[in-house]
Amino acid sequence: MTNPTAAMIVIGDEILSGRTRDSNMHYLAGELTKVGIDLREVRVVSDDAAAIIAAVKALSAAHTHVFTSGGIGPTHDDITADCIAQAFDRHIDVRDDARALLAAHYARTGSELNAARLRMARIPDGATLIENPVSTAPGFTVGNVHVMAGVPSVFQAMVASVLPTLTGGKPLLSQTLRIQRGEGDIAGPLADLAQRYPDLSMGSYPFQLNGVYGANIVIRGQDGARVDAAMAELSALFPA
Amino acid sequence: MTNPTAAMIVIGDEILSGRTRDSNMHYLAGELTKVGIDLREVRVVSDDAAAIIAAVKALSAAHTHVFTSGGIGPTHDDITADCIAQAFDRHIDVRDDARALLAAHYARTGSELNAARLRMARIPDGATLIENPVSTAPGFTVGNVHVMAGVPSVFQAMVASVLPTLTGGKPLLSQTLRIQRGEGDIAGPLADLAQRYPDLSMGSYPFQLNGVYGANIVIRGQDGARVDAAMAELSALFPA
Repeated sequence: MTNPTAAMIVIGDEILSGRTRDSNMHYLAGELTKVGIDLREVRVVSDDAAAIIAAVKALSAAHTHVFTSGGIGPTHDDITADCIAQAFDRHIDVRDDARALLAAHYARTGSELNAARLRMARIPDGATLIENPVSTAPGFTVGNVHVMAGVPSVFQAMVASVLPTLTGGKPLLSQTLRIQRGEGDIAGPLADLAQRYPDLSMGSYPFQLNGVYGANIVIRGQDGARVDAAMAELSALFPA
Repeated sequence: MTNPTAAMIVIGDEILSGRTRDSNMHYLAGELTKVGIDLREVRVVSDDAAAIIAAVKALSAAHTHVFTSGGIGPTHDDITADCIAQAFDRHIDVRDDARALLAAHYARTGSELNAARLRMARIPDGATLIENPVSTAPGFTVGNVHVMAGVPSVFQAMVASVLPTLTGGKPLLSQTLRIQRGEGDIAGPLADLAQRYPDLSMGSYPFQLNGVYGANIVIRGQDGARVDAAMAELSALFPA
């Protein structure tokens, strides 16, 4: 039996100009190797619609999975979602569930859900959302293309959400707790909890926004009752 | 006037498996930006002839320059030179000047120029050699494709050799002195020399092989007499 194959598309002028050094390729390569998916090709393309669409079409036709990073933020040069829609000939618009996620997030952080931020709720028809425990704005999967953020902490969290769904295992259930405490305060009790629930995975994704800092703790597992139990303990340790 | 465009092909399973983190892309991106060449696309491909040839053909047709890194060493999976020859429909064989470079290098270091090492002298017909002041085995240019090593110190030295020839300036002349002393001993006098020859560029490329260590010092400039003068001073400072 041969392994499924994958390709990655890194989207962003900042990588090609040398201003930013990409780290998502190396991270994804390591994660795919662990689960037996062969990464065969990576393309780094600029924030150019024709280049993105051509890469998506070529690579999604040639491989089992395609992963993209970058270009799903709120600014005018974040055109990845629209390009994916075009590549798959799908309609795209603001989607209610994605808008609700963003509305709740910005209400909590005291920022306005303005037109720019609402761009991050534009999702092609028929897509499945990818959870973003770091900064809420979701990624999505269309066909065999998994569209994720370029910010490394968000990219890594999204990879953790998506990968288990691709490897034929039972789907993972997840719950997130937002804790407004420094990671240094969270780390000890969390390590304790993780040791008593070896069947669950627990991830800590720090955030810092408008002077508020803390971490989103994501607990993932196949058994919903176990995830509930661990989350109840965590909530008791860190009351809101 | 628009800038010339470039693409890069990173060749190597070790990057795609996550074992090695590529650093050449970020380095080249920065160097190209400095000289006003727009890097538009990077492809990372595996040690697979069909993949390499397809990438070379597509990107050399679409861009002013293509830079490759990796796959020009002595082992069986180093197939880049043969793939480039195929992509450009050129004959390839061991070339006398490349063989002579390697023979002198291995004679000096006391290693045998065996069949594996001789592979590194395979050069497509009509190619121009690219100097390798670190470990001798040359890169080469065919058409608009510049074929360089994957080892970062060698890649960087080759970029320094090639770039000035692409930017329309007068061609750079270079001379190399091999010094069997630690870089720490060389650095002071070399900085002194560089200050007195601001019109020249002086690079230090450390090596370590079979317990012998030192650095190759490359002096580059447009004025041959100045390069000669600086090299004479350097040789006097570090007699063989």
